[in-house]
Amino acid sequence: MTKKRVAVAGASGYAGGEVLRHLLAHPDVEVGAVTGASNAGQSLGALQPHLVPLADRVLAETTVDTLSGHDVVVLGLPHGQSGAVAAQLPDDVVVIDCGADFRLADAALWEQFYGGEHAGTWPYGLPELPGQREVLGGATRIAVPGCYPTVSTLTLAPAIASGVVDPEVVVVAASGTSGAGKAAKPHLLGSEIMGNASAYGVGGVHRHTPEIIQNLSTLVDGTVSVSFTPLLVPMARGILATCSAPLRGGISAEDAYEVYSKAYDDEPFVHVLPPGQWPQTQSVTGSNSVHVQVTVDEAAGRLVAVGAVDNLAKGTAGAAVQCMNLALGLEETTGLTTVGLAP
Amino acid sequence: MTKKRVAVAGASGYAGGEVLRHLLAHPDVEVGAVTGASNAGQSLGALQPHLVPLADRVLAETTVDTLSGHDVVVLGLPHGQSGAVAAQLPDDVVVIDCGADFRLADAALWEQFYGGEHAGTWPYGLPELPGQREVLGGATRIAVPGCYPTVSTLTLAPAIASGVVDPEVVVVAASGTSGAGKAAKPHLLGSEIMGNASAYGVGGVHRHTPEIIQNLSTLVDGTVSVSFTPLLVPMARGILATCSAPLRGGISAEDAYEVYSKAYDDEPFVHVLPPGQWPQTQSVTGSNSVHVQVTVDEAAGRLVAVGAVDNLAKGTAGAAVQCMNLALGLEETTGLTTVGLAP
Amino acid sequence: MTKKRVAVAGASGYAGGEVLRHLLAHPDVEVGAVTGASNAGQSLGALQPHLVPLADRVLAETTVDTLSGHDVVVLGLPHGQSGAVAAQLPDDVVVIDCGADFRLADAALWEQFYGGEHAGTWPYGLPELPGQREVLGGATRIAVPGCYPTVSTLTLAPAIASGVVDPEVVVVAASGTSGAGKAAKPHLLGSEIMGNASAYGVGGVHRHTPEIIQNLSTLVDGTVSVSFTPLLVPMARGILATCSAPLRGGISAEDAYEVYSKAYDDEPFVHVLPPGQWPQTQSVTGSNSVHVQVTVDEAAGRLVAVGAVDNLAKGTAGAAVQCMNLALGLEETTGLTTVGLAP
Amino acid sequence: MTKKRVAVAGASGYAGGEVLRHLLAHPDVEVGAVTGASNAGQSLGALQPHLVPLADRVLAETTVDTLSGHDVVVLGLPHGQSGAVAAQLPDDVVVIDCGADFRLADAALWEQFYGGEHAGTWPYGLPELPGQREVLGGATRIAVPGCYPTVSTLTLAPAIASGVVDPEVVVVAASGTSGAGKAAKPHLLGSEIMGNASAYGVGGVHRHTPEIIQNLSTLVDGTVSVSFTPLLVPMARGILATCSAPLRGGISAEDAYEVYSKAYDDEPFVHVLPPGQWPQTQSVTGSNSVHVQVTVDEAAGRLVAVGAVDNLAKGTAGAAVQCMNLALGLEETTGLTTVGLAP
Repeated sequence: MTKKRVAVAGASGYAGGEVLRHLLAHPDVEVGAVTGASNAGQSLGALQPHLVPLADRVLAETTVDTLSGHDVVVLGLPHGQSGAVAAQLPDDVVVIDCGADFRLADAALWEQFYGGEHAGTWPYGLPELPGQREVLGGATRIAVPGCYPTVSTLTLAPAIASGVVDPEVVVVAASGTSGAGKAAKPHLLGSEIMGNASAYGVGGVHRHTPEIIQNLSTLVDGTVSVSFTPLLVPMARGILATCSAPLRGGISAEDAYEVYSKAYDDEPFVHVLPPGQWPQTQSVTGSNSVHVQVTVDEAAGRLVAVGAVDNLAKGTAGAAVQCMNLALGLEETTGLTTVGLAP
Repeated sequence: MTKKRVAVAGASGYAGGEVLRHLLAHPDVEVGAVTGASNAGQSLGALQPHLVPLADRVLAETTVDTLSGHDVVVLGLPHGQSGAVAAQLPDDVVVIDCGADFRLADAALWEQFYGGEHAGTWPYGLPELPGQREVLGGATRIAVPGCYPTVSTLTLAPAIASGVVDPEVVVVAASGTSGAGKAAKPHLLGSEIMGNASAYGVGGVHRHTPEIIQNLSTLVDGTVSVSFTPLLVPMARGILATCSAPLRGGISAEDAYEVYSKAYDDEPFVHVLPPGQWPQTQSVTGSNSVHVQVTVDEAAGRLVAVGAVDNLAKGTAGAAVQCMNLALGLEETTGLTTVGLAP
Repeated sequence: MTKKRVAVAGASGYAGGEVLRHLLAHPDVEVGAVTGASNAGQSLGALQPHLVPLADRVLAETTVDTLSGHDVVVLGLPHGQSGAVAAQLPDDVVVIDCGADFRLADAALWEQFYGGEHAGTWPYGLPELPGQREVLGGATRIAVPGCYPTVSTLTLAPAIASGVVDPEVVVVAASGTSGAGKAAKPHLLGSEIMGNASAYGVGGVHRHTPEIIQNLSTLVDGTVSVSFTPLLVPMARGILATCSAPLRGGISAEDAYEVYSKAYDDEPFVHVLPPGQWPQTQSVTGSNSVHVQVTVDEAAGRLVAVGAVDNLAKGTAGAAVQCMNLALGLEETTGLTTVGLAP
Repeated sequence: MTKKRVAVAGASGYAGGEVLRHLLAHPDVEVGAVTGASNAGQSLGALQPHLVPLADRVLAETTVDTLSGHDVVVLGLPHGQSGAVAAQLPDDVVVIDCGADFRLADAALWEQFYGGEHAGTWPYGLPELPGQREVLGGATRIAVPGCYPTVSTLTLAPAIASGVVDPEVVVVAASGTSGAGKAAKPHLLGSEIMGNASAYGVGGVHRHTPEIIQNLSTLVDGTVSVSFTPLLVPMARGILATCSAPLRGGISAEDAYEVYSKAYDDEPFVHVLPPGQWPQTQSVTGSNSVHVQVTVDEAAGRLVAVGAVDNLAKGTAGAAVQCMNLALGLEETTGLTTVGLAP
């Protein structure tokens, strides 16, 4: 098979670097153009020294010229910039946006949470949602989900879809810092992060809140409410999402576990851990796996589920490759691993 | 004033070491006996090299002999061992237990969560609870609260006491590792902790759950339910507790802030941060401060409050000293600081 | 090609787990027996949750029975245990020891540094040493180098071999904690490691000292002296070795760089970074790469070189696979990557 | 005694914040003006939330007006800015510069390493150097030493001064990130720092090199050479300096220990640990202590000494307070602690 040529725009950032790391491990693709903005002209050897085989590649400007002539273009651009680039690319090129521009179906919500004009809505790149795998097969425009929505949705979906809980969920998700990107900001300095845990975007104002609601709403009739609090904790990668919701009736922990096991039995990347074993982010580092566990708190009347994901891998770049595989008609798991890097 | 002599049992552990660090900064006490179990015979210079002024002190065995002749005895012993030691000490010696043995009023709950026989109930060392400061004045037996209950209670108390929420709370608390103590266990190795976030004791089974319920129940009529999930995150000290509860009526974020501000206006160690500024554990490291913030998530219909504490300081040793001050009739804040060590 | 069957003894430890992670990514092998000692009977899903495809495998006892019938046996056992196991395996089985038992040629040195009787000397698994690649081709017994010796040797070899420095070197190597293994010891607890840097084995007493001397002695006539100090720093993986030696004559930084570039031009896994760019351990995490840089301190009259390695990957498991490839007549780089996981 | 009024310029940075933390613990001073540049107008509550008692203080501009009327002015300004400010302050005000402007006696060296014009030379704030305590008594202009020079000098001084080694030293010092300041730079992001160790300023080009040479040169006749390599490791605070030098004659480890013990017997802040116990940075966190240990590597013919310091405390702010005490005629140790915060 001829290898597919894949361009990566925004190759100096964390998402772009992780996409490249994934592409280097993929047997059916070759890395084409790598582009950037302020870093154009610099080598990947200087910008991403871990990507040894690409060390001599020099970043081009992100333009329609540099991105043309590829089978796939992956965009790792700041919010609001993907639309203009994508509009100039031919319809038959597979364009995969790691940003937020095309995730939300509701333009008003997009404008409320992101500001500016809504660029549109693309097929949503979470194949594990019912029917979504089919939508992504052959798609040429794909919106990669946000990292928090990926793990929150997958951790809650079986409980919501089965109706064992009311769709009024509380999500507290502890994240590593790479999700905040590589732009230098004082509160993201190592000195501020190490030995420190903090909350941000509290009270429903984080931009991923409407995306979680949108996802869960596909699983159930009626209104879904989500209380979402993101935390920043001292690690570079990984999100641990603690999710709970009121039990609708008397379901046992064993029954809840059964609901989850069945829901993910055929999913290649979602693993319900053995009973009693709880997820940890280290186990999924660098992999496309999501680890999930569930129990029931009878006294509090709540189902509690916990999920772990690598925000840059299955949370971004791995999802992009998984969707690319579907779009190109390749085996969905090609070039992806379920094996994490631990310790 | 003659300095009070204070003995510390369990001086080689994290709680004991932190009590000693606090005592060294206290103008009105002197460190008496320091005792241990398997470490008896070793010097503090080897066991706690940060406690330079005590480097030449050698740990004695924890016996009634070594602990006798002090004004105050602070116990930092494994659960279940404090009762036997305390029983042998004179009634007029102030005994402060950093362990869990005497925290719960309900013997059945104690036995359910800790196993073994309930040792009894001592005055609970959280002066910020209504009426509790008076109870602790002159007390000679004091149970220091657990670290999670301290921060969870103080973060939720104004909302519960004022009735603006239903007492059905969800607490997700991210903790550093020192709370798990200095006994070597594989899952607490640095290699397992760094780059890793995990959940444990999920589903209401953590031992601090009944203690949080007990505390909040003093603030409101009727049943309190608590869904409590502790997380382990890669830092040595600190707990960040994210707490939420369903709003009872239409309260604004500003009104919620007002409720909290007023509740803690006179408290020397609980600080409601300026509006919009969220707590971080680094700010309270090594101090007796608790930092709190609150808001309202209208869409989700919940009040969300976040609190930060140093689990070893205000969460253990600082609370012990604060209670000791009350017991001895000293100024409550003597020898304690509100200033954290950051970065 | 029929896949080679590989057994891993000591599969619950860090070295064993990392060997399994490497084998799962290798196209020409399949994982055979996985064995342990005190963990026998437990599943890898419980012991190594990141190795998802092996989750259902149960650890067998490490015996000649469980290890028989494989093409390759990789040993990740405590020091002193490999000899007895290897003696029972057929001569034509490739046995690769990740431990120290067969690394040193000098029995007296082995006994001085490790105690007990010297088990013997096997071909030393550092293909980058002159002539060593040929020794390893077709070998059936291979001693994987220690992690510190790997990076120290490769960082110093061009300078020593070219004679631009006197062979009197100073090595200070900062290591992550996984090199100390998974056995629970108090000084390796997360609480002790985070926010902490410490030195140990100071003054030439670390067991890797004679191994570094042995390696460098193959490159030069006369006596080699090594002052080696290992440091423990707060990260799970990686070693950064800062190495220096007195300049023999007037060599410029540019000439020193040229010496290094030429020395490693054909090596697949040793990368001399662009001039002025210094190694960092994050760039090599999880990979088989060693990153190296060199300069000259004219005022101090010393050449200074710095190298980075992942102690578990190229420092242990990657080296084992690289040597296995050579032993089996496979392409040396099969199943290995030069791409690190960053950030 | 009337409390001395102390102003702090650069109060939003790490050095300035730590000076304030120290002043808050000092019984004989009160905090006067707090000033900044781009942060002027913001409150300390927002900028330094750990300094609770100063939360309502608003940063003024750094001008001669805001700094006038104080007994002491501590400068925590970027390099090159202290001279202009100090020149406008009265001669009898004690001005303590935490920056590098006045540390070096040799103007040519200053210009070579820092660029720009040399501002002058002030009494050097390391009281532990011979005769320096007397120089600082009553001084009104004091240059606080650099963090690396403090620990490197104190770790090597007894060996150099006693002549047991040749003054040709190798120093490799692993530092936390706070020494690099609070200005946001991509390579200091948490994502880049955690799980990462790196070298920088290799080959004698780090600005602290001439300062170390200057200090050691006061202890010995003849030329001193220093090969200095700084490392960045994943922690916020602390420096661990590994120092070695060629032995001049046959000195035993015991004799070397004796040399160090005697040298620091009367120093309140330098602690030679018990034989065989090596320094760790955690033990000195937040304190004014320096922990030191020494041994002899007979095979390599080198003395090896290791020192630990908190770069922000004894490495900057603690030294400033120690010098302030001497300048004001207070007890040298007032307001300072030898007790570290651990774990």
